[in-house]
Amino acid sequence: MNMMKSLIFIEPGKIEIVEKRIPDVGPNDALLKITTTTICGTDIHIYKGEYPVAKGLTIGHEPVGIIEKLGSAVQGYQEGQRVIAGAICPSFSSYACQDGFPSQDGGYKATGGWRFGNIIDGTQAEYVLVPDAQANLAPVPDGLTDEQVLMCPDIMSTGFKGAENANINIGDIVAVFAQGPIGLCATAGARLKGASTIIAIDGNNQRLAMAKKMGADITLNFNEVDVVDEVLKLTGGRGVDSSIEALGLKTTFEQALKVLKPGGTLSSLGVYSEDLTIPMAYFASGLGDHTIRTALCPGGKERMRRLMNVIETGRVDLSEMVTHTYALDDIVEAYDLFMHQRDGVLKIAIKP
Amino acid sequence: MNMMKSLIFIEPGKIEIVEKRIPDVGPNDALLKITTTTICGTDIHIYKGEYPVAKGLTIGHEPVGIIEKLGSAVQGYQEGQRVIAGAICPSFSSYACQDGFPSQDGGYKATGGWRFGNIIDGTQAEYVLVPDAQANLAPVPDGLTDEQVLMCPDIMSTGFKGAENANINIGDIVAVFAQGPIGLCATAGARLKGASTIIAIDGNNQRLAMAKKMGADITLNFNEVDVVDEVLKLTGGRGVDSSIEALGLKTTFEQALKVLKPGGTLSSLGVYSEDLTIPMAYFASGLGDHTIRTALCPGGKERMRRLMNVIETGRVDLSEMVTHTYALDDIVEAYDLFMHQRDGVLKIAIKP
Amino acid sequence: MNMMKSLIFIEPGKIEIVEKRIPDVGPNDALLKITTTTICGTDIHIYKGEYPVAKGLTIGHEPVGIIEKLGSAVQGYQEGQRVIAGAICPSFSSYACQDGFPSQDGGYKATGGWRFGNIIDGTQAEYVLVPDAQANLAPVPDGLTDEQVLMCPDIMSTGFKGAENANINIGDIVAVFAQGPIGLCATAGARLKGASTIIAIDGNNQRLAMAKKMGADITLNFNEVDVVDEVLKLTGGRGVDSSIEALGLKTTFEQALKVLKPGGTLSSLGVYSEDLTIPMAYFASGLGDHTIRTALCPGGKERMRRLMNVIETGRVDLSEMVTHTYALDDIVEAYDLFMHQRDGVLKIAIKP
Amino acid sequence: MNMMKSLIFIEPGKIEIVEKRIPDVGPNDALLKITTTTICGTDIHIYKGEYPVAKGLTIGHEPVGIIEKLGSAVQGYQEGQRVIAGAICPSFSSYACQDGFPSQDGGYKATGGWRFGNIIDGTQAEYVLVPDAQANLAPVPDGLTDEQVLMCPDIMSTGFKGAENANINIGDIVAVFAQGPIGLCATAGARLKGASTIIAIDGNNQRLAMAKKMGADITLNFNEVDVVDEVLKLTGGRGVDSSIEALGLKTTFEQALKVLKPGGTLSSLGVYSEDLTIPMAYFASGLGDHTIRTALCPGGKERMRRLMNVIETGRVDLSEMVTHTYALDDIVEAYDLFMHQRDGVLKIAIKP
Repeated sequence: MNMMKSLIFIEPGKIEIVEKRIPDVGPNDALLKITTTTICGTDIHIYKGEYPVAKGLTIGHEPVGIIEKLGSAVQGYQEGQRVIAGAICPSFSSYACQDGFPSQDGGYKATGGWRFGNIIDGTQAEYVLVPDAQANLAPVPDGLTDEQVLMCPDIMSTGFKGAENANINIGDIVAVFAQGPIGLCATAGARLKGASTIIAIDGNNQRLAMAKKMGADITLNFNEVDVVDEVLKLTGGRGVDSSIEALGLKTTFEQALKVLKPGGTLSSLGVYSEDLTIPMAYFASGLGDHTIRTALCPGGKERMRRLMNVIETGRVDLSEMVTHTYALDDIVEAYDLFMHQRDGVLKIAIKP
Repeated sequence: MNMMKSLIFIEPGKIEIVEKRIPDVGPNDALLKITTTTICGTDIHIYKGEYPVAKGLTIGHEPVGIIEKLGSAVQGYQEGQRVIAGAICPSFSSYACQDGFPSQDGGYKATGGWRFGNIIDGTQAEYVLVPDAQANLAPVPDGLTDEQVLMCPDIMSTGFKGAENANINIGDIVAVFAQGPIGLCATAGARLKGASTIIAIDGNNQRLAMAKKMGADITLNFNEVDVVDEVLKLTGGRGVDSSIEALGLKTTFEQALKVLKPGGTLSSLGVYSEDLTIPMAYFASGLGDHTIRTALCPGGKERMRRLMNVIETGRVDLSEMVTHTYALDDIVEAYDLFMHQRDGVLKIAIKP
Repeated sequence: MNMMKSLIFIEPGKIEIVEKRIPDVGPNDALLKITTTTICGTDIHIYKGEYPVAKGLTIGHEPVGIIEKLGSAVQGYQEGQRVIAGAICPSFSSYACQDGFPSQDGGYKATGGWRFGNIIDGTQAEYVLVPDAQANLAPVPDGLTDEQVLMCPDIMSTGFKGAENANINIGDIVAVFAQGPIGLCATAGARLKGASTIIAIDGNNQRLAMAKKMGADITLNFNEVDVVDEVLKLTGGRGVDSSIEALGLKTTFEQALKVLKPGGTLSSLGVYSEDLTIPMAYFASGLGDHTIRTALCPGGKERMRRLMNVIETGRVDLSEMVTHTYALDDIVEAYDLFMHQRDGVLKIAIKP
Repeated sequence: MNMMKSLIFIEPGKIEIVEKRIPDVGPNDALLKITTTTICGTDIHIYKGEYPVAKGLTIGHEPVGIIEKLGSAVQGYQEGQRVIAGAICPSFSSYACQDGFPSQDGGYKATGGWRFGNIIDGTQAEYVLVPDAQANLAPVPDGLTDEQVLMCPDIMSTGFKGAENANINIGDIVAVFAQGPIGLCATAGARLKGASTIIAIDGNNQRLAMAKKMGADITLNFNEVDVVDEVLKLTGGRGVDSSIEALGLKTTFEQALKVLKPGGTLSSLGVYSEDLTIPMAYFASGLGDHTIRTALCPGGKERMRRLMNVIETGRVDLSEMVTHTYALDDIVEAYDLFMHQRDGVLKIAIKP
């Protein structure tokens, strides 16, 4: 029982299930037996070689599982307990963490808090080692299924952060660009933060229908209307209080800026692979009291506890977003489905 | 006595002193007799035609003067009282003002609060009409000279806002790009907000020497060093907590981003006349928890009162920044000196 | 047509409908013909003489009406337009307003922004004069009834401010003490700001049932349980993230403190008529990183616009809170009903 | 070499130097050899039995020292390195820490982050064991003496937090009640945060003279004037923007409230041993938009790094506050001097 199945990155376009040694557990670690994990858009970037990781690394960063073994210094948990951990697992002890930026952990290297499937072995495996376990293990409340909490580690935490970063006040109008899993969570988050009019934008009517369920008041299909014109028309020319970019393209970033009121906030969630432009015609020559903020998914057990509470009290129900289930053995096939957005896929539960 | 001298914009490259009628005073207005005003970088943009204003408009937006006549609805002031008003004169009654963005006054038209020398006659004249006087007239404390308060309406308010927007915490390292009048005030403002290390950057050693007086700890001449490399070296590779852009060029904006730590804030004060680029190599692909904020100079009598108090209690002394004095009759000559940065000019007092 | 009926304060325990002159309209005023107004708990304090106002003053501060006449300097409105104005009508031009505290308008006299039925004639009349009309008139969207917007001027703005002041983050547990009209709006506001568990407390089961409709997850009747013990039990001993006091008693203020976690915020809405005590046993000897904040109802047309938008998009429906309707002629009887909380009364619509 | 001298609490009024075993070093600990420590007002409370600690506990919570031994899991430090640690040593991993309240560490027990000399052996000894060393060890920059950094662990961090909690904006007027070591640091902190008028209050003219050196503009001796009247007079009746309570008495807390403007913030640092009263006559019946905040000293290596940077760059010089030096062997005598405030004592350096 000291070997486990893991999905590893081989080279751009090639991933594979292999056998790996189950890792040793240091004093501050915990070993989780994965019960459910999922595939993220970032994993697709890794698969395609657009985001480089080491050859042989186990991919995946969204763990739901059971504590198999606890490090000697980890207290207040028991083996056998059902937990999740954030996609981002900060140490919470570094200068960057104490400075208020735990996701930028690790000597102020950007994104240093993202370890699973990036700089250490990830969750698309039978077991995963959670570092700084004391700070990162979050017990799952009884009565919540794996599927119900599967979005907490990444998608929900990221999407909600997009809303939290958007300076939303009661009565605000918010536009959310793209309604993939993260955009849908940003829509739900904007609703939760008190926006009174939410405009959800996408090119896929199925996703726009889901956006309505997540709290959007108005949906716009960019294949059917000029979304910038339409948003400005809907706001009487004033623009929105906040816009959330949830795709990662230069063009949506610019649109998110173009619909913004003077004094408005653009909250960006996208992972960009091209340089961005800020067009002065839509930026008041730099005199518009605008704010642009970016974010990396918040992690840590307190964040996870709060997100699970939101689900437990029924504020948000993301379980409909889990559209498919695959065994870990079939994960390569699941990647293919997810990557090509076939069959109305939003998120896939992977079961080792 | 119902005519006054005014400097008006004729066409790009041409400004002229002419006689104009002294304006009528409506119920919410006040007429000021200007005792001192100044020329701003923005006026140079207007002069060159880079920022369009109506032909015949009186230019200038920094009034120090004496109340000549008060509108019937304006209370708590007396004719003969010595006052200033902000370069930006918001109504404080509009939706945008009440929404927290008074400088974006006027139906959410960007920069709508900037009226003097932009959409109404300005201050480079013998008299100026102050709209919404109840909100904008700020009495000058006895004992402060015109020169001491001359920076309050624009330069000081803008520069300090750059520091206020920069999320400065005690112990922060802040880099200020460009040490013209606004950059120097941003340096003074960063000091006032608790930055413990301030790096001032410019290409002019005279201005860098002044930056030291305003509170900079370290000065860098971009003609002598690669400022991005140098700032990163000075911070042990971590980057600065905040950077302030006080010039208005694409390249300084990019440099201000390149030296920023993950989690850091870029506070932009520049008036840009070209589109900006956000290079992904220095933006953590959008995952760096960065903030970018822009600002337009805050106005209103409370802001002016506070700035004058800062001067009165000796926290900051900007009087050395007034390097030259000209009569209003000679203002065209003063423009020429200011525009070409001859003779170590920083700011010029204009006396009608 | 230059006389109007008005309810005036005579002496403690005595109010009366009298005829008064319809006031003149100054350049910054607007005269409203009241279509609906209501009675507030504060009016009861006035009636009883607990809050002193001048003899002969028209009481009431919640106007829904039609613009009868506009001052010469008021722009962008038309006579005949349907509007509301906040209970608090700040000038937005004073130092206090520009300093961020418009409700404390007027030379920093506390509560200086509250003018209707306090220092100028109020709304329980056929007409009311709105001062600083440019800043305070808020057009009612077509399709909203008087009853739907009747809570906006005071109850809704106050209750929501209680939630806004409570530093609510996604996933927070919030306790709201008292479920009268303001407490019910605080409950709705806490829901709107992202609290995931809301505990509503009152002694009246009818009001607790209404609290559930407004978004409470758990209700506690203080006649049936020890609410402090119960809240601590519900939170596993940790305490709530925020508590909102919506009654105005020393004992509820103390309870709101006793249930608070270290680091928590007590948002106080009550109008207290006795000194408060902060018991050290529940305040960590002053070392608990606690915050206590008070508030006066925010006013102004932007606030009113936002609140009406919240109603228009269906985020909150307060119309069920209007339990009774009376003609202005019968208002003295309505006071009696309201004061004694007979017949399940929450709010009464008064129709001139 | 496995025994060390330690000052322990025996019973109220009795402390004693004894020999104790040098503690073992766990994986996340570090053992420091103390080079300098000090006595705090809180130690006096402990000495007198007003704040209970276990019999036999080593007292003291302000360590300057050299790393003697590092736990196996602590990285990035070397034995022999010169460091400080905060008086408060949070784990940074608990729910409370991740929730933004590290000083309230430990399952949301108030003040749970304060461990040295409270729940574990403290620093008035030859050695001290630092828990969660990775998060708490802060290297001392070369060139700073022990005396220069001796205030960082507690007094400076606490006093500055008082200023940080006070919502200070540029141009604010701030009153600081009491100019003992913490009040003096609060005065220095208010200056650092941009207050333009600082009013320092005490009954001791020597301390008021020191307050001037720390940045006070005006000093008031409460034995000579009625400080509430005087502050209101100095502010033209408006009150101060913020007041900081740095003593811990019911009366100074009330005075700090009485001088506050509507909208103002009372930042409390005092450790109170009696219940507080909020008098309604000075609290606008709860309608004054007031804020009251308390704080426990922030700890952690990032905080310490920042404070040492403030000293290194000369922003603040607290070394004059170290008025006396004693050997650890003579610490009981030093307690006596400190407790009775003899000989102009402010802080005493204790040298093992």
